[in-house]
Amino acid sequence: MSFELSLNTGTTPNLNLQQAVEAAAQAGLTHIGPWRHLIEQAGGAQRAAAIIKEGGLKASTLCRGGFLTATSKQAQKEAFESNRKAIEEAATIDAPNLIMVVGGLPSAAHILGGSGDPSDKDIVGARDRVARALDQLVPLAMDYGVCLVLEALHPMYAVDRAVLSTLGQALDLATAHPSEAVGVVVDTFHVFWDPQLQQQIQRAGHERRLVSYQICDFNLPIASNALQSRGMMGDGHIDFAAISRWVAKAGYRGPVEVEIFNDEINGQAADLTLGTMSERYKSLVLPHLEVAAGIQQASAIN
Amino acid sequence: MSFELSLNTGTTPNLNLQQAVEAAAQAGLTHIGPWRHLIEQAGGAQRAAAIIKEGGLKASTLCRGGFLTATSKQAQKEAFESNRKAIEEAATIDAPNLIMVVGGLPSAAHILGGSGDPSDKDIVGARDRVARALDQLVPLAMDYGVCLVLEALHPMYAVDRAVLSTLGQALDLATAHPSEAVGVVVDTFHVFWDPQLQQQIQRAGHERRLVSYQICDFNLPIASNALQSRGMMGDGHIDFAAISRWVAKAGYRGPVEVEIFNDEINGQAADLTLGTMSERYKSLVLPHLEVAAGIQQASAIN
Repeated sequence: MSFELSLNTGTTPNLNLQQAVEAAAQAGLTHIGPWRHLIEQAGGAQRAAAIIKEGGLKASTLCRGGFLTATSKQAQKEAFESNRKAIEEAATIDAPNLIMVVGGLPSAAHILGGSGDPSDKDIVGARDRVARALDQLVPLAMDYGVCLVLEALHPMYAVDRAVLSTLGQALDLATAHPSEAVGVVVDTFHVFWDPQLQQQIQRAGHERRLVSYQICDFNLPIASNALQSRGMMGDGHIDFAAISRWVAKAGYRGPVEVEIFNDEINGQAADLTLGTMSERYKSLVLPHLEVAAGIQQASAIN
Repeated sequence: MSFELSLNTGTTPNLNLQQAVEAAAQAGLTHIGPWRHLIEQAGGAQRAAAIIKEGGLKASTLCRGGFLTATSKQAQKEAFESNRKAIEEAATIDAPNLIMVVGGLPSAAHILGGSGDPSDKDIVGARDRVARALDQLVPLAMDYGVCLVLEALHPMYAVDRAVLSTLGQALDLATAHPSEAVGVVVDTFHVFWDPQLQQQIQRAGHERRLVSYQICDFNLPIASNALQSRGMMGDGHIDFAAISRWVAKAGYRGPVEVEIFNDEINGQAADLTLGTMSERYKSLVLPHLEVAAGIQQASAIN
């Protein structure tokens, strides 16, 4: 099977892992991408693994590791330890991919509750620390058989969440490492605007690093909490037909994960959300993946 | 003289052209970058030219032309006409540069009061229409001796304002035209996050297209009206030292324009704004420009 639908648990934040697994299975999904706090809530990775397995699902990703831009030795050590634990959790729940949000500038560390340095706005230096931290994590990831998946975040989050802003930059950063240890994700919200998107998706496939496809729409106006601007496919302005074709042409055949942070959608009943996302996926995304993959004819697209 | 400070009138939206010119001159500035509605308010470009000249200032830019992504022949014709008029105005007020905000997707045209097509989210097609419209405008710009200055906007505006999101993309688009007809601007707010920024600024200098440097900071959280997130230099998270060095090393020696859309700053007394921007410019930006240009020694920077 190709292009199976996966529920990222960020889409249903009011459900615990057990509930999310049940809701996803009920809706006919085969995969789930859990966030780490649900693993902890469930009593740890072994228990989480059992919940996912008993529910008949597989984990597509674990969200998330990263936050590698701290300047102090102490904070760097804590980040390493947190990522070591995340890699172990990913392996335990049998998730092939650990999504990595690399972290922002020290000047903005306080925004996410960290301690930084208000005067340190050196984005080039922050990127360099990400590369060094990755060097340390890769051997661990290889030991556990987990792929560290670099996520380029929309540039509106460059300051506080990720100094990694484009797919091309993610691939450049990955180059130093084997493709089984460091991959990339195409998240439509984060990269749809990129003038190099088609060519970098192609490159990601060619370099065998395209290991995850996450989807949601880009809504306007931007939500007052900018994180919550992710929309249901079809509600915003992203051309899912084009991006999905590029992803499938680059050879991607894995699960497609829906990750929506959006106050309205997050607050509604989970079965409504899962129903809508399945329907939108089948009408707006899947046909274009399948045509580009040669699984069905273009005439099948209305 | 190099690196003279210029007031973009977006920073003082409550002043008419006469008042903005007086306030800028009073604060010791030598340049102004007016928005077009102030030209109209002043009674047209000839009157505006006289106001600027009588105030002892020069125009660094005219803001703005663009919005070239419409799909209907009628809307394209109107856009051409509006840009023709803008080029003429720029020439009349002796502004060497017309800043071009290229426009967004048809699916979002209604957001800025236009009529588009809710289903047209084809960003590649929109970029292509920009290129075609530019082909038509360039001969006119050359006739008038005005440079069309492509402005890459922050990707958070890719949907509604500009499908041109990076300096590299702007330079690629400019390639088809002579450098005196099509240039680029580095606006710190829009491009600070770009991993290719240093190399593309260098390229812009090399290709003789770097004709404007606009500055303001990137504030967090993003304002509820995302347009208003531009901050006073030093209040946000941009590394002005690094970007200013890159700009000067690329050979830029022109005026530096401060353009801040920000409810608090826009609402305060203009002399306070002009005083603060002059002071911040002299402490955070100018020394780095001058050192990189070889005008002063690095030891002059605290």
